Amino acid sequence: MNYPDQLIAYYQTVAEECVPGLSLDCVIFGFHDTRLKVLLLRWKETNEWCLPGGFIYKKESVDAAAGRVLHERTGLNQLFLQQFHLFGEAVRYDREDTWQRQKMPMPFGGSWPDRTISMGYYALVDYTKVTPTADFLSDECVWCEVGDLPSLLYDHRQIIDVALQTLRLQLNWQPIGLNLMPEKFTIPDLQRLYETVLGRSLDARNFHKKITGLSILTRLNERRTGGAYKSPYLYQFDQTNYQKALVNGNLIFV
Amino acid sequence: MNYPDQLIAYYQTVAEECVPGLSLDCVIFGFHDTRLKVLLLRWKETNEWCLPGGFIYKKESVDAAAGRVLHERTGLNQLFLQQFHLFGEAVRYDREDTWQRQKMPMPFGGSWPDRTISMGYYALVDYTKVTPTADFLSDECVWCEVGDLPSLLYDHRQIIDVALQTLRLQLNWQPIGLNLMPEKFTIPDLQRLYETVLGRSLDARNFHKKITGLSILTRLNERRTGGAYKSPYLYQFDQTNYQKALVNGNLIFV
Repeated sequence: MNYPDQLIAYYQTVAEECVPGLSLDCVIFGFHDTRLKVLLLRWKETNEWCLPGGFIYKKESVDAAAGRVLHERTGLNQLFLQQFHLFGEAVRYDREDTWQRQKMPMPFGGSWPDRTISMGYYALVDYTKVTPTADFLSDECVWCEVGDLPSLLYDHRQIIDVALQTLRLQLNWQPIGLNLMPEKFTIPDLQRLYETVLGRSLDARNFHKKITGLSILTRLNERRTGGAYKSPYLYQFDQTNYQKALVNGNLIFV
Repeated sequence: MNYPDQLIAYYQTVAEECVPGLSLDCVIFGFHDTRLKVLLLRWKETNEWCLPGGFIYKKESVDAAAGRVLHERTGLNQLFLQQFHLFGEAVRYDREDTWQRQKMPMPFGGSWPDRTISMGYYALVDYTKVTPTADFLSDECVWCEVGDLPSLLYDHRQIIDVALQTLRLQLNWQPIGLNLMPEKFTIPDLQRLYETVLGRSLDARNFHKKITGLSILTRLNERRTGGAYKSPYLYQFDQTNYQKALVNGNLIFV
């Protein structure tokens, strides 16, 4: 079967086996070399990119479908996968234009609903543990820098923007870092992550005071040596308190 | 047309005019007499209750549909209406049982999808400004105490629970109170709201320090008199800073 026929067959199968008119998109964030990255797929035979995503089988929960997509694209069984926004605009993007950029067979033969609403999920993953894996609709699956995104299909640029806003807000009340940081790290390392997500620099003393005040860190009897400055202590996340803070928030009103 | 026929006609219209398989449910919170309340509808000719909700017209955004439902049930044009969770379980509740409790005409004649996924929204509204208005599916629309809920249809008990958890988490990073409190209030009044939402008592000195530290309150040159204790100052929300905090969070990491 040639690719256009494969495509039509794929969408035909989706129309038969999946919940109609609902899709999901996963914004998978990783942190590497002081850069925030997001996992993207390049649409087959084009220079157009999109988020990993998919559809929900008729007897599958939407959350389970998101976990499945994440697993298929990364190899991970992720614990921290979070709904963040339903993209439910009446017209989310220019369909004709998008199909042309995707080199869709036109007129598109599938019995496709007029409108697809998409549930956005985001995940924070360990960059080093991911095996990016393309699906049959795409030529490659790679990490792209959030600050330097390529041309994106659909409304995926907006979906990434909203995910990023959510992540920034989340820093106000939930810890982040458990999956993004290596096992042992210094407070300045962690500050770099917060600064990258927030997109601005933070005062080091203030950050130190606030982050250690959250009881989510354990200081090790180890220092990082070899740097230009005095050797900073290494820290680990306190798993129990971290999980508690993830569920309950940082509890500033306790 | 008798009621069962009306029902069938209604669902037929929904099937024709609305997005298939997707609904929305609104958890509308109000605060009155130190109690947190939620707006509920009593299903026609039964003692079964449910949340205000509805469907999305084919050319309507999901957010706009939620605003429409909120307006129809309360008379309010609400600014703070927030998505909080997509209820996307493969089986959300026992349909047969629910239809029996609703006294649905059986077998139900509509061409109804096997599964309905529901987007949950919550709103915080001024109790005194609401005119609760039943729809044609219900006999009455009233405020019920969150701590003393009646028998609820579908998975609406769970939806309220998740909304409440979201609200509790939100206290960690976003202000609440603007729509829930009267225009002028004392810090102990506001503490009562926080305590009600959190379901536990808070230390008064600590609360005073933290809440005034958020820069969302303006102290007036007025005190409340006539109480048993020394007259406390009255406060108002600083609208600009409040709106900023709503969008950006309380910015504990600034």
